[in-house]
Amino acid sequence: MILSALLTSVGINFGLCIIYIAAFSILRKLPVNADVYAPRIVAAAKNDDTSDSNSGRSTSWLRMAWDPSEDELLMRAGLDGLVFMRIFIFSLKVFSFAGVVGLCVLLPINYMGSQIYIDFSDFTNKSLESFSISNVNDGSKRLWIHFGSVYAFTAFVCYLLYFEYNYISSKRFEFYSSSKPKPDEFTVLVRGVPESSTQSLDETVENFFSKCYPLVYLSHYMLYNTSKIWKIVHDAEKIYEKLAILKSTKESSQRFGRVGFLGLCGPKVDLVEYYEKKLEDLEVETKIQQTFVTGKELPAAFVSFKTRIGAAVALHIQQGQNPIEWLTEQAPEARDIYWAFFSTSFLTRWIGNVVVVIACAVLTILFFIPVLIVQGLTNLNTLEALFPFLRGILDIAIISEVITGYLPSLILKTFLAIVPPVMRLLSSIQSFVSHSQIEKSACIKVLWFIIWNVFFANALSGSILYRLNIFLEPKKIPNILAVAVPEQATFFITYVVTSGWTNTASELLRLTALIMSYIKRIFTDESGEEFKVPSLHYSSEIPRILLFGLLGITYFFLSPLILPFLLVYFCLGYIVYRHQLLNVYSPQFETGGTFWPIVHNCTIFSLVLMHLIAVGIFGLKGLPLASTLTIPLPIITLLFNSYCQKRFVPDFKGYPVELMAEKDRRDENDPEISDFREKLITAYQDPALKPIHFNEITDSRNAPLLASES
Amino acid sequence: MILSALLTSVGINFGLCIIYIAAFSILRKLPVNADVYAPRIVAAAKNDDTSDSNSGRSTSWLRMAWDPSEDELLMRAGLDGLVFMRIFIFSLKVFSFAGVVGLCVLLPINYMGSQIYIDFSDFTNKSLESFSISNVNDGSKRLWIHFGSVYAFTAFVCYLLYFEYNYISSKRFEFYSSSKPKPDEFTVLVRGVPESSTQSLDETVENFFSKCYPLVYLSHYMLYNTSKIWKIVHDAEKIYEKLAILKSTKESSQRFGRVGFLGLCGPKVDLVEYYEKKLEDLEVETKIQQTFVTGKELPAAFVSFKTRIGAAVALHIQQGQNPIEWLTEQAPEARDIYWAFFSTSFLTRWIGNVVVVIACAVLTILFFIPVLIVQGLTNLNTLEALFPFLRGILDIAIISEVITGYLPSLILKTFLAIVPPVMRLLSSIQSFVSHSQIEKSACIKVLWFIIWNVFFANALSGSILYRLNIFLEPKKIPNILAVAVPEQATFFITYVVTSGWTNTASELLRLTALIMSYIKRIFTDESGEEFKVPSLHYSSEIPRILLFGLLGITYFFLSPLILPFLLVYFCLGYIVYRHQLLNVYSPQFETGGTFWPIVHNCTIFSLVLMHLIAVGIFGLKGLPLASTLTIPLPIITLLFNSYCQKRFVPDFKGYPVELMAEKDRRDENDPEISDFREKLITAYQDPALKPIHFNEITDSRNAPLLASES
Repeated sequence: MILSALLTSVGINFGLCIIYIAAFSILRKLPVNADVYAPRIVAAAKNDDTSDSNSGRSTSWLRMAWDPSEDELLMRAGLDGLVFMRIFIFSLKVFSFAGVVGLCVLLPINYMGSQIYIDFSDFTNKSLESFSISNVNDGSKRLWIHFGSVYAFTAFVCYLLYFEYNYISSKRFEFYSSSKPKPDEFTVLVRGVPESSTQSLDETVENFFSKCYPLVYLSHYMLYNTSKIWKIVHDAEKIYEKLAILKSTKESSQRFGRVGFLGLCGPKVDLVEYYEKKLEDLEVETKIQQTFVTGKELPAAFVSFKTRIGAAVALHIQQGQNPIEWLTEQAPEARDIYWAFFSTSFLTRWIGNVVVVIACAVLTILFFIPVLIVQGLTNLNTLEALFPFLRGILDIAIISEVITGYLPSLILKTFLAIVPPVMRLLSSIQSFVSHSQIEKSACIKVLWFIIWNVFFANALSGSILYRLNIFLEPKKIPNILAVAVPEQATFFITYVVTSGWTNTASELLRLTALIMSYIKRIFTDESGEEFKVPSLHYSSEIPRILLFGLLGITYFFLSPLILPFLLVYFCLGYIVYRHQLLNVYSPQFETGGTFWPIVHNCTIFSLVLMHLIAVGIFGLKGLPLASTLTIPLPIITLLFNSYCQKRFVPDFKGYPVELMAEKDRRDENDPEISDFREKLITAYQDPALKPIHFNEITDSRNAPLLASES
Repeated sequence: MILSALLTSVGINFGLCIIYIAAFSILRKLPVNADVYAPRIVAAAKNDDTSDSNSGRSTSWLRMAWDPSEDELLMRAGLDGLVFMRIFIFSLKVFSFAGVVGLCVLLPINYMGSQIYIDFSDFTNKSLESFSISNVNDGSKRLWIHFGSVYAFTAFVCYLLYFEYNYISSKRFEFYSSSKPKPDEFTVLVRGVPESSTQSLDETVENFFSKCYPLVYLSHYMLYNTSKIWKIVHDAEKIYEKLAILKSTKESSQRFGRVGFLGLCGPKVDLVEYYEKKLEDLEVETKIQQTFVTGKELPAAFVSFKTRIGAAVALHIQQGQNPIEWLTEQAPEARDIYWAFFSTSFLTRWIGNVVVVIACAVLTILFFIPVLIVQGLTNLNTLEALFPFLRGILDIAIISEVITGYLPSLILKTFLAIVPPVMRLLSSIQSFVSHSQIEKSACIKVLWFIIWNVFFANALSGSILYRLNIFLEPKKIPNILAVAVPEQATFFITYVVTSGWTNTASELLRLTALIMSYIKRIFTDESGEEFKVPSLHYSSEIPRILLFGLLGITYFFLSPLILPFLLVYFCLGYIVYRHQLLNVYSPQFETGGTFWPIVHNCTIFSLVLMHLIAVGIFGLKGLPLASTLTIPLPIITLLFNSYCQKRFVPDFKGYPVELMAEKDRRDENDPEISDFREKLITAYQDPALKPIHFNEITDSRNAPLLASES
């Protein structure tokens, strides 16, 4: 890698960011783009197109995005949105501290060293390394300042972690206490209802719960295998979309077409008539299926109670004498349920889980191989040795710059784009019952994937090619990391972070959505009528953002030069996502902030990784005492983590009796509670079993045909 | 080891058994021994010395002991007694099957082999081995029968394990359903009550629970640090004992003595007067301490509820917002509480646990060293090489027989006698709040100790002396086990099992208790007035019995010759313990059968150990295919075990809502429930804080001075 390539890349990315931000400042003012830049506001007030968000100067949104108040965010984006934004605030705090220490203390010390011989004819290639720890003379006493900074930084990050956990945990309880009664607080999902020869499953459930919970049992709703109906609905949806386009086109000639094989054969018919007939057929078929399906109950039900404590008892205490019957779990919010795949057999779920876990592990590990090969590209000498015929091409400056400079970040970007959907797909067949569980599980999978591939594959690729046995000699890992890391860290991370700038800024511009909306307008007459309020995929966003935090924490004392780039990234991210969460994305579910433990664990992981590298570096640099004295640090960090697990994790698994009892008490005096209970009885009805009229279709995110009924 | 030594040992042990049984048959008929052989009956009806148990022919007890009905046992010894006896029944079933397979199939096959060259001049030393698997020719197809028997035996044992778990689990629920309301069902122990500046701990607890459980909260009882009072009571107890002996002696000369340093100096005084004065002083001091202590509440309380479900909610669901405050655990029975050591600080308990775990591990591993040395004794050649001057002595036949034959079993016996009290001591400082928890924890500790020392130290001692690196090469364990085990197994186990016969039979005779009772009668006038009804220490008995089961299962297919000895042992044990549980021992607590999972896990452990040995043996015997085909067996066994964990372990952790709700419903119609609730309020009062009058002393097991008040 050479400095000019890096500087080119930084410059291009910086320029793109400025252009994107300027473009956004102008484009958001055009009322025609309101459905891209403020779809929530448009959805809330369809008739009043000129909403507040469009007024003010072009850059007023920048000031608003820095508004420190969290109440509006909490109201509009829920606790998950708040937690998401806390990632940026937490990172900004961490890297402000790291930036001060790194730039004011470590950077001058590194530069004062003379370990790296700077050949002025090759100045550009070595100059960056003279700012990294590699330049400090071996055995120098100045390394103790690095040692001290590692301790201080760890203490600071741990303090922040505790503070954030505490803050989010208290916000979670506050949110719970202040929220109105919600159906999922009173409901549990029961699986493994035992079969009985004398009564139906429905009766079994009714008898069991009215006997065990005579005072608090309210109602139950049996589950059915509605996957066929969901398929019909899905087909109808497609036809409806075609129909909507047909009806809105001006030219009547398009109304006629062939309907045979791929629309290529058969006589020409009136397509509107044809599709309307087909919709009617599907409606009839849906009704037949509904009657058919409701005859066969699954051994699972949503059971609702009059009090939150009643539901908690059903959730936390063994129900029947056989612990693999009457299994209970927290009911998701009704809008959050993943109806389409509702497998109930214990064995199926168990096998599904095992298969998915193995698939994920294999996928993650096998991806290592292409990464290794492509990473070999950055080492031009290796490449030339392997493929001698390429020598002529590789000697051309621009090509070698592209290969060594852009390819790694391109590969990374491709991963970051492709992996989350794949992981979501894998999670979705893992028999989770809600979208939020799928998102959370996918988020963890993506994180593991990224940590493995980006951290280890990137950091170790140079050395691992001739040291594949590293994992057979775990004691050597710190040393190998210490050798492999600093020489690549500055270049690599700067590349990745600056390309992250552009990514984030393009997210601000919502380029794809903007283009799509223009294309739609060309084909259909009416605009602004039929748009989706998008929702944020946490499983894509959180790992991408955490990755930068992880890189920054792990390499902070090795290459302080990366810190300002990170600070810019998190500032940009804060501005971009806060605005978007307020006006663009609408939450699809509310997990009550349970994404935070993932963030916490990742941070602990990167701290420990940093400690391991520090152990190796101090050893290599001829300061074995510092190396030894660093060893207690990961142990203390892990003890701190285990305390945090005890102290906070239970808070994120459920709610304490104290709060539930208080809310139940408030309910007693609430005149609306009887209305609420009536609604509760039907809250968990499968949308696929409700009466369906296809002419009432609207277009919301998941189940347009069915959501219209609620 | 030589055959003659073994036969001598078997003969002696068999003879001793017969003598003990005969002596018991006679001695139990003497009314004067009733307080040794039927203390429970004596305690139940002190005035009616001629109870049922003394009638009938001398051997009628033998018939009665085989009575298959479990109702009487359940009534008198509780579920723990029943579980204890199920160990024998389970073992008898296992070894009946093993005996049939081993003696009818494996033994003839082994004997038909010709691998072991029998030198008829040395017949005695080799003859036993010709019945073991060592005698089967290498590569013989007959080894497939051993292979099949390992599979069949595993399947049978797993079936029995499932059956027993199911049986005991259902018995547990039956016992719970049919039992009357007990205070511990309605009570939880709460620790970590948060301090408040505005109210006392007592008020905090009252406010919290009456707010969170307005309908079901009944009362609470704060805990105090009464260790000082318990010390005074302990002192008073000793003085009282001296006083009782003094008062009952006929000779008045003994009433006068010195009371200075160790009773050696100072003027002669009337001891009765002196001790009575001292008792009065202690009574005054107790009252002062009681007033002093009740001023300082500990942040812990017993909280009682009106319903079982209420208590279960407090037990299973997080109480306060901070999960390390308001920690709840199941309250033990009042009689079961270990008041003397009631540490409440979270940190103290955590440190205590860590220290005890380390101490146990160190103790267990360090004991390996003396075992290795003494085990070296059985290898006379090694011994002679190490200590050449001993050669003359070791050549004497009788000495070598004693050293090689008796020393190992003597060491084992000593272990078995010393280790349980040590482990109980360690467990008691582990801040458990009840005797039953201490017993259970000690039982597990003793088992680990025995498994490590007896299994590995004994089995591996021969080979391990020159292969200490075995645990660094885990792949070699099966092979090493396979080499080391069979050559020692038959001799060693037969020794251990036959000495177990004598142990068990002497337990029947209760020799120590018998002698003690005669000595007591010499010194005191009245007899039968002041005796203790003893209780069984499960932490001593269960590991001792399980050890034989473990040995039998592990070595069953290697040396079928051991099986009849085991069958005799378990028959004898069944007879001895069943009689004793009915008439001698009185249960000190009721854990509801929660000892069974320990038995289950141990059996699984020994099955897997057997599989590992089988893998090694088949490999060594030149049947690598059989060796490979055995590998799935431990995997299947562990999967079976994990299913059992899911299916049964929750049943042993608590009771399902189904049963609790039913019992609560029954209570509503019970006219005695209001009386019970009044008693419940005071059930968990610390005996040390009750009014104490030292002239009302009686002698019951734990807290004689205090129990008298209840």
